[in-house]
Amino acid sequence: MDAAAPEMIEALKEEARVAYREAMAHLAAAVTIVTTDGEGGRAGFAATAVCSLSDTPPTLLVCLNKASSAHAAVSVNGIVCVNVLAAHHENISRVFGGRTPMTERFESGTWEIGDTGAPVLADALTAFECRIGHVVDGGTHDIFMAEVLAIRSTTDKPLIYFRRSYQSL
Amino acid sequence: MDAAAPEMIEALKEEARVAYREAMAHLAAAVTIVTTDGEGGRAGFAATAVCSLSDTPPTLLVCLNKASSAHAAVSVNGIVCVNVLAAHHENISRVFGGRTPMTERFESGTWEIGDTGAPVLADALTAFECRIGHVVDGGTHDIFMAEVLAIRSTTDKPLIYFRRSYQSL
Repeated sequence: MDAAAPEMIEALKEEARVAYREAMAHLAAAVTIVTTDGEGGRAGFAATAVCSLSDTPPTLLVCLNKASSAHAAVSVNGIVCVNVLAAHHENISRVFGGRTPMTERFESGTWEIGDTGAPVLADALTAFECRIGHVVDGGTHDIFMAEVLAIRSTTDKPLIYFRRSYQSL
Repeated sequence: MDAAAPEMIEALKEEARVAYREAMAHLAAAVTIVTTDGEGGRAGFAATAVCSLSDTPPTLLVCLNKASSAHAAVSVNGIVCVNVLAAHHENISRVFGGRTPMTERFESGTWEIGDTGAPVLADALTAFECRIGHVVDGGTHDIFMAEVLAIRSTTDKPLIYFRRSYQSL
């Protein structure tokens, strides 16, 4: 049997990527803005690929595309704040998830400087200030293990992203 | 200055763990049942610590406590199915997240055998059958990189866990 032509293999890979992105749209997720500041510059981006790794010590995982501008900033600064958004933060999510230049993004929302130096959204549903520990190579993305140093929370309703639209509970 | 007594350090660590668990309760998350089968035995557990790593190739991250019985089964079998639950699956989540013996858990829900041999929930909101690739040491937990091989989806509403209660959109 002939080997599949390279263009056929690429077409199959693209098909798998599309099917995967469609299926992931069914995984409801909290929306977060991951921020950083320091020698690598200030940056912030909307992320749903955040989850808990351990409570001993308290550690979150943050997945970040190596090709993103935020990746370099997070790598150099070694600190992040994971700001979990409330239902009323939909516009902030759009700004940090879209094509707005990094220098203009922080004009949306009220930002304070946290203990780590990372921007903290003043009225975040929950804000986790973290120090980056290990970084694991995950192919197109890196997995940052983020050890939690400081936490603040409110009692608002959460912003949820599901089937490509914003919702709340 | 005297070094802090060991018991004081332990008390601070426990305080940090409690604060972290409280804050994580504010991170709304889809509920999944991660299942496996093979030489390591059949197992399944409720998990919210699942997120997307990459779409090239399609890969999920699954975090699993090293001390859990499911950890050994997943490690030996090398395959999992991530079954994303619909709103009407609350009872299945309670069974797989509680103290029900592993042999009795699969009596809740309608389970089929997937292409990988893993149990697939017949009416899952979305089911991702995966082959385990790299496993990364995350302290108390391991991070399993799960490459997606097959997907099926429905159009139901999602089951969401937020502030220790089940909700939907």
